[in-house]
Amino acid sequence: MERTRAEALDATDPVARFRERFVFDEPAETIYLDGNSLGRMPRDGLDRLRGSIDEWAERLVGGWDGWLDLPRQVGDRLGGVALGAAAGQMLVCDSTTVNLFKLASAALDALSPAGAKAIVTDAGNFPTDRYVLEGLAASRRLVLRMIEADEVEGPTVDDVERACAGADVALLVLSHVGYRSAAVADLRAITASVGMSAGVPVLWDLSHSVGALPVELDRDGVQLAVGCTYKYVNGGPGAPAFLYVRNELQDRLRTPIQGWFGQHDQFAMHRAYDPERDVRRFLAGTPPILQLAAVAGAVDVLDAIGLDRIRAKNIALTELAVQLSDEWLAPLGFQLVSPRDPKRRGSHVCLRHPNAEAITDELAARQQVIADFRGPDRIRLGLAAPYTRFVDVYDGLERLRNLLT
Amino acid sequence: MERTRAEALDATDPVARFRERFVFDEPAETIYLDGNSLGRMPRDGLDRLRGSIDEWAERLVGGWDGWLDLPRQVGDRLGGVALGAAAGQMLVCDSTTVNLFKLASAALDALSPAGAKAIVTDAGNFPTDRYVLEGLAASRRLVLRMIEADEVEGPTVDDVERACAGADVALLVLSHVGYRSAAVADLRAITASVGMSAGVPVLWDLSHSVGALPVELDRDGVQLAVGCTYKYVNGGPGAPAFLYVRNELQDRLRTPIQGWFGQHDQFAMHRAYDPERDVRRFLAGTPPILQLAAVAGAVDVLDAIGLDRIRAKNIALTELAVQLSDEWLAPLGFQLVSPRDPKRRGSHVCLRHPNAEAITDELAARQQVIADFRGPDRIRLGLAAPYTRFVDVYDGLERLRNLLT
Repeated sequence: MERTRAEALDATDPVARFRERFVFDEPAETIYLDGNSLGRMPRDGLDRLRGSIDEWAERLVGGWDGWLDLPRQVGDRLGGVALGAAAGQMLVCDSTTVNLFKLASAALDALSPAGAKAIVTDAGNFPTDRYVLEGLAASRRLVLRMIEADEVEGPTVDDVERACAGADVALLVLSHVGYRSAAVADLRAITASVGMSAGVPVLWDLSHSVGALPVELDRDGVQLAVGCTYKYVNGGPGAPAFLYVRNELQDRLRTPIQGWFGQHDQFAMHRAYDPERDVRRFLAGTPPILQLAAVAGAVDVLDAIGLDRIRAKNIALTELAVQLSDEWLAPLGFQLVSPRDPKRRGSHVCLRHPNAEAITDELAARQQVIADFRGPDRIRLGLAAPYTRFVDVYDGLERLRNLLT
Repeated sequence: MERTRAEALDATDPVARFRERFVFDEPAETIYLDGNSLGRMPRDGLDRLRGSIDEWAERLVGGWDGWLDLPRQVGDRLGGVALGAAAGQMLVCDSTTVNLFKLASAALDALSPAGAKAIVTDAGNFPTDRYVLEGLAASRRLVLRMIEADEVEGPTVDDVERACAGADVALLVLSHVGYRSAAVADLRAITASVGMSAGVPVLWDLSHSVGALPVELDRDGVQLAVGCTYKYVNGGPGAPAFLYVRNELQDRLRTPIQGWFGQHDQFAMHRAYDPERDVRRFLAGTPPILQLAAVAGAVDVLDAIGLDRIRAKNIALTELAVQLSDEWLAPLGFQLVSPRDPKRRGSHVCLRHPNAEAITDELAARQQVIADFRGPDRIRLGLAAPYTRFVDVYDGLERLRNLLT
């Protein structure tokens, strides 16, 4: 394949003009293919971050007039732009880990079928999801049952239904997009069959789909979801995460971490715990206002581009990466370990090679291509549509080929 | 009292020269007496914050080389500068609420005497502490027993010993400095008698003492502590909180929120949960790096000044406020509801007045003096030593007097 092919794709790319809404302060020769790990800084996010720093300096504690409702405001905005969530069901706060703990714990308390004794997840799920669930299972004397799915294609509806067939499932937790393979789980079908028909509470981790794939939480009947904002949302390192609790479940669910930000009438401080009437009951302590502001700005950029255009472009980017991998890298011992069907693939491509760790390191050190290594033998190439060009994919994979030849 | 008295105190104040290390971007006529709620922005904190923003822009995901260990590094630094904690026992992460939940839960699992059935705290403790403990008590079928202490003087050693006398106490949680009265609890004596002698795990909330009073966690045998960094540490709105777990307890304690940042060998992602060997096991998810950096800079300022000088000055500041209150405000119906003994008083002064809410609002709107209201009838005047002048106290209280006369 010639580079002109990638150049032509860039020339007609409707997302290309949004690239200028991001900061490019790294050395010019760098090719960044790791937006799946940490998204690039959006100018709007930087502006909002600076604005909130100024508010601290100029308004001091008075800034709280505008900050107090930010977790809900930014949540509503993210939910509307990227997740198909009507207002009043989202918060941006805490980390994905803490939000997962809160929602999983609440679901086990209030939504699990009587006598259920297993938490089910995918053996290939992201570590923090598995660790949190291990802890919850141990403390509640439940079994943690692992779905052993195909490691490239991820858990199918059949895999999940089989694991949940025994009518003993207290909670199902899955990632929408696999952090290694990028396999997209059938969120709608699994929610319908396991969640709605079988009555198992289902909690989705959207960390690798939010901002990359349109998600329709309300339409698809999702009950509970969490995810991070530092990957495809571009909220910055350690940006606060989000949580979604479907409207009709909110009054039945209680957070295990009863904090003052989740208290009804928060500043009437003499009272006993009395949770907020809405999703805000899932707030815990004081949220990180400066980084919340950065997320707000980042969401504006996603809104300007639109999730459908982002998805169309990341399919085209990963298709190009797959073609180049087949042509250049397969002969060098690389194996594609992401789904070949682009509709079943998120916004990154995963390659397996026995020397993956050394190759990833050298690719950065000698070729200025930033990808990431996932042990024991994988390289992930994150192709974030808002700022990644087709020539970046072409040049990045060419440099990878050059490293090995 | 004449203003020259306050001017003279400023002229000989060894802390005065550190005022230039803070940002003063609010309107010039403002007098800020609310550093107990949100600390002022330190220039060093702003520099570190900007530096971390630049790292994100310039190094992208490579920034994690320096960020990954920040929760421990900043924790060690804060512990060394302000809390008498040798390295390896502190983290800066999550919120005070979440940290309190983690440590209280871990203590109940591993440290409570067999058969214990009560969690004890002060009825006047900060709301989030009471709410978290209410939740833990309910989920573990424990009683939450409230110490009904004098609301000005706070819980005495006797009060606490009496509440813990039944040998049925699973956990004692107290604030070192009361959020309303500013009463200082006898951390050392309570830790010795209830903690060491009676064998009750004791968890201290240091939110209103850290950065204002020298604390000696190691020397005083403290087992567990948490606190925030947005008050007298000046870390910024929603800055991550800290936690302290005494060295010899770390391997016995397990966090209820098992996240990937607390995992031993974090990036060997295929393994089951295996907690870090040290205090890092109490990390949960990805920490808010930008705001963590701001805390690091803020601690540098505390270190430059020194906690002993900060404490000596805030005693002098609150003494001046008490004298002026006696002279000017008592005749107007204000009642001092902080301890009169300066050694038993933190860095704020609390006044009671039946119209406190309206007065606090008008004081800000008409006199540009920022204090804060705590329902139903109290005004808190926070006198943060690093940047508050004696003339600020004089002028602030004079404007308060003028408002009422």
